[in-house]
Amino acid sequence: MRADHLWTGARLATMRPDLPGLGIIEDGVIAAQHGRILHAGPAADAPAFDAARTTDLEGRWVTPGLIDCHTHLIHAGDRAHEFELRLKGASYEEIARAGGGIVSTMRATRAADEAELLRQALPRLDALLAEGVTTVEVKSGYGLTLQDEVKMLRAARALAGLRPVDIATTFLGAHAVPPEFAENHDAYIDLVCRSMIPHVAQHGLADAVDGFCEGIGFSLAQVRRVFHAAKAHGLAIKLHAEQLSNLQGAALAAQCGALSADHLEHVDEPAVRAMAQAGTVAVMLPGAYYFTRDTHLPPIDLFRIHGVPMAVATDCNPGTAPLTSLLLSMNMAATLFRMSVEECLTGVTRHAARALGRQADIGTLEAGKACDLAIWDIERPAELVYRMGFNPLHARIHRGIS
Amino acid sequence: MRADHLWTGARLATMRPDLPGLGIIEDGVIAAQHGRILHAGPAADAPAFDAARTTDLEGRWVTPGLIDCHTHLIHAGDRAHEFELRLKGASYEEIARAGGGIVSTMRATRAADEAELLRQALPRLDALLAEGVTTVEVKSGYGLTLQDEVKMLRAARALAGLRPVDIATTFLGAHAVPPEFAENHDAYIDLVCRSMIPHVAQHGLADAVDGFCEGIGFSLAQVRRVFHAAKAHGLAIKLHAEQLSNLQGAALAAQCGALSADHLEHVDEPAVRAMAQAGTVAVMLPGAYYFTRDTHLPPIDLFRIHGVPMAVATDCNPGTAPLTSLLLSMNMAATLFRMSVEECLTGVTRHAARALGRQADIGTLEAGKACDLAIWDIERPAELVYRMGFNPLHARIHRGIS
Ligand SMILES: [Zn+2]
Ligand SMILES: [Zn+2]
Repeated sequence: MRADHLWTGARLATMRPDLPGLGIIEDGVIAAQHGRILHAGPAADAPAFDAARTTDLEGRWVTPGLIDCHTHLIHAGDRAHEFELRLKGASYEEIARAGGGIVSTMRATRAADEAELLRQALPRLDALLAEGVTTVEVKSGYGLTLQDEVKMLRAARALAGLRPVDIATTFLGAHAVPPEFAENHDAYIDLVCRSMIPHVAQHGLADAVDGFCEGIGFSLAQVRRVFHAAKAHGLAIKLHAEQLSNLQGAALAAQCGALSADHLEHVDEPAVRAMAQAGTVAVMLPGAYYFTRDTHLPPIDLFRIHGVPMAVATDCNPGTAPLTSLLLSMNMAATLFRMSVEECLTGVTRHAARALGRQADIGTLEAGKACDLAIWDIERPAELVYRMGFNPLHARIHRGIS
Repeated sequence: MRADHLWTGARLATMRPDLPGLGIIEDGVIAAQHGRILHAGPAADAPAFDAARTTDLEGRWVTPGLIDCHTHLIHAGDRAHEFELRLKGASYEEIARAGGGIVSTMRATRAADEAELLRQALPRLDALLAEGVTTVEVKSGYGLTLQDEVKMLRAARALAGLRPVDIATTFLGAHAVPPEFAENHDAYIDLVCRSMIPHVAQHGLADAVDGFCEGIGFSLAQVRRVFHAAKAHGLAIKLHAEQLSNLQGAALAAQCGALSADHLEHVDEPAVRAMAQAGTVAVMLPGAYYFTRDTHLPPIDLFRIHGVPMAVATDCNPGTAPLTSLLLSMNMAATLFRMSVEECLTGVTRHAARALGRQADIGTLEAGKACDLAIWDIERPAELVYRMGFNPLHARIHRGIS
């Protein structure tokens, strides 16, 4: 069988759902052709390949390329000074209500052009890629005008032309109420639903639509309007839900068939049951939990009991998670949320793919999927979760190319 | 004035004790000659230099090279599997009592020769250096025989020949009771005091002597014996104290003139007062606090009130802090311990130098000190504490050489 590239001597953590645990194959081979996996399995069963190139991995571990399924990677400025203030006692909500917080990032993002947004985002993207990430979701939501939201989404899309990575874009117009609409939140939702979503859909700028359902964000009724507009325009939906309180956002998301509900520290059992039925992924964002010193843990046991797939992501954003390490996110999911090694690793591969609706294309080592690989200098997969501030990546393969 | 290297256009965070805060000089220059700082100050006041080489830093920030003043960098094996077990509910003490924990690292370290110890430690050292670290303290303490402790210290010393870095070695024979002495802890302390410390001192293998004063380590009386032996052989002392309980180790350390007492989650106010009087540095190890899910915060306010200098270090070790990022350690000190940006940054420079007794040589940007610099692509020093999993190092200079 002809192949562009054959990797031998590999220990595979395939993440295949039909195998137990991490779907481990100890003496494995992977063959790629035209950027896709032609074969991934035990060396003993493999067909004979006529490969243009062969690489002996000498026993190294291979996982699917990692997927960061929740980021706000595109934004201007940072909030390091706000961080200094928070160390002096101001809370996230106090800073938000005082006009600091997200509004300062909005102003900086509005003031930046697309090239400047890219210039600032690329070092963050490079930090993720250096750890074996091959797909990154990027949200808008700091522009909050049609023009500035479009600018953010175009910048996000442009990242894929500048680096070997897949970018999934999410329109998050309903991230915050911009100052212009401070007196009339519903009028801003009108704009989001009647102008922004149709435009974004028509121009193919977003793969999904997201919102922030929270006391300091949008109400359940407002989010429902956003979801209906998104679906009317053929876009998938997601939701920032139950991070600070329980507004029943996750239940609504599940009811509307959302790909994922994210954060979920305050979600309740009926909503978890609804998520399980709908196949909505629970995206865990332990970096935000850590950075905001949250103490209310998401109900990991309920997700387990009801069979809700859990993903893990960075939430990379300047206000509540200035975090650009998916490896560290896994360590935080394990250390803080007590997620198992297996849950962490499927959470940045198979389940993260599903949170993006891309489970047919990425997230496991299986024939037919994109040949996105992370090759590691480790003795066992648990090391990827256990260490902090250490990067054992040996090589990263995106669409068959290193 | 002749200089080997002149850096201009620099924003200096000098960490000078005679200046407020971080000792900031906005438009600064640094001149180096023979590996030492010849001049560091405002461009306006600088003498004219005849420099062999000049580098315009274009407004970049310069701090002293960072100092990781508490690590167990030299060890064999990892404890990723134990981490998996802990996620299933076993506590650190339970694992230790069950013969797992530190004993497994001891066995692996005894089985490794010096070359193997170096091979395993170098990637960890490289991770630290990549973030601007120029001095690393390395402890023994996993050998627990004369021969194996000496092997560890020789390996630690050898690191300085393999990478451009200063290594401070600390003899930590009193880290744990080896299985051979399970029935007679005092006999092991005899060996430490009568055989190991004299040998280590005679051969110049250690710059200091450390111990683990804890219920699962050594008693106050045993530590006192270790301190007396160390001082009798002219060695400085340090102590792992009050991490899990209050055995009055910090008070003893202060009373004996220790350079530092480290961990200190359970230290009390009289001991803090004694540390202040003795000039003993409080070394904060938030990575171990985080990784072991400790909830008992060290009394940062007491250190502030009584004027105890605080350092921040990784505690890099396989059991309780598999951490190789001093930047992340600062973020944890801020996020978890509420240390200020200024406290974190002086904690990995000026105060860390003092925790090693090297305050005359490193830790600030001042004429006469070693020219160890970290040059950063940041807009303000707070970014070094605020971000997680991001490395903005532009260049690292050790003894005047990049
Ligand atoms: Zn988010
Ligand atoms: Zn230690």
